[in-house]
Amino acid sequence: MSSNISKQTLQRLPLYLSYIKALPADAPKNISATMIAEALQLNDVQVRKDLASVSSSGKPKVGYSVKDLIAELESFLGYDNVDDAIIVGAGSLGKALLNYGGFKEYGLNILAAFDLCSEPEEFQGKTVFPIEQLETVCRRMNIRIGIITVPASNAQEICDNLVKSGVRAIWNFAPVHLVVPEGILVQNENMASSLALLSNHLREELKR
Amino acid sequence: MSSNISKQTLQRLPLYLSYIKALPADAPKNISATMIAEALQLNDVQVRKDLASVSSSGKPKVGYSVKDLIAELESFLGYDNVDDAIIVGAGSLGKALLNYGGFKEYGLNILAAFDLCSEPEEFQGKTVFPIEQLETVCRRMNIRIGIITVPASNAQEICDNLVKSGVRAIWNFAPVHLVVPEGILVQNENMASSLALLSNHLREELKR
Repeated sequence: MSSNISKQTLQRLPLYLSYIKALPADAPKNISATMIAEALQLNDVQVRKDLASVSSSGKPKVGYSVKDLIAELESFLGYDNVDDAIIVGAGSLGKALLNYGGFKEYGLNILAAFDLCSEPEEFQGKTVFPIEQLETVCRRMNIRIGIITVPASNAQEICDNLVKSGVRAIWNFAPVHLVVPEGILVQNENMASSLALLSNHLREELKR
Repeated sequence: MSSNISKQTLQRLPLYLSYIKALPADAPKNISATMIAEALQLNDVQVRKDLASVSSSGKPKVGYSVKDLIAELESFLGYDNVDDAIIVGAGSLGKALLNYGGFKEYGLNILAAFDLCSEPEEFQGKTVFPIEQLETVCRRMNIRIGIITVPASNAQEICDNLVKSGVRAIWNFAPVHLVVPEGILVQNENMASSLALLSNHLREELKR
């Protein structure tokens, strides 16, 4: 097993995991890289290489034990080791993410949110803290993942505060490019860019 | 103005728009590509080229009128021409998106959702229809954008049904690779892949 895995491989591993976890209960107990590649319409050699980087249990002509491969992928992806995170920006997107239960399955537990308010407020069982308490709460809870859902104009300032509060990885939903010190990861989730592609596709079609 | 714009340019345009829209009211009335590039830490030449592809109003040494550039970007990105969409899968993510008001600002109006249910149900002012009514409703409302938030194992079947129902662009939140006929655009929003990158970053740091 390699500890240096490419970003591309890391992004494909959840696809493999979700596919093999969704196999019917009466499916064969073993699966080959070729079968996964065919089902997901991916390159055979690439899938084989990706799986070899997280599992050493594959056998020639037999393939992988489905049960073992699920455990290996989940462990590799950190799904068995849930990371705590907080959200800054409790607008409609922030609240939607705060309230979305599905992230736990992927190893992410969103504990609380922060926004402009004079004292802590409850929202569907989670707390929205005043933004002034960001550093205190992050330090106390040892938070290392921060999710940014504030407007674009405030995102860099919030990002700087998160880094100052000990956060090492930032999931950014604001449509801006964030500047961070070395060693901090920013993962951008730019829904506006996605929507621009969808909308452009429809307009290009209309022109034809 | 060019009608053939690269995917990369299209994805950067919302960044420029959100930046210039967030400028303070007392900021200068004109802005140059260089100023935008500096603020967003992007390449000067690239920003200049991107803007030239959507606007013909920039003047040497003066730059762009902020007001005109906002209007040109919004029009180019289709924000002034809202597209109707539907969601398939009214689980927690589907409901969060259905209930999120922020997409309208980006030209997307989510009208309704579909899920397994025996008759239409109301959810916070929007309707969740039985999945059997997908084609009828899409045809009647002339829906061209479908959002998939069903589990990975059902996503391809839903995708096929959307295409059969006249949908031309698919925003896919299920962690699978979808196979579509030529001419249909699939935009993947793979949150599981994003979380894999964040989580891996934290684990790599711990090893040091």
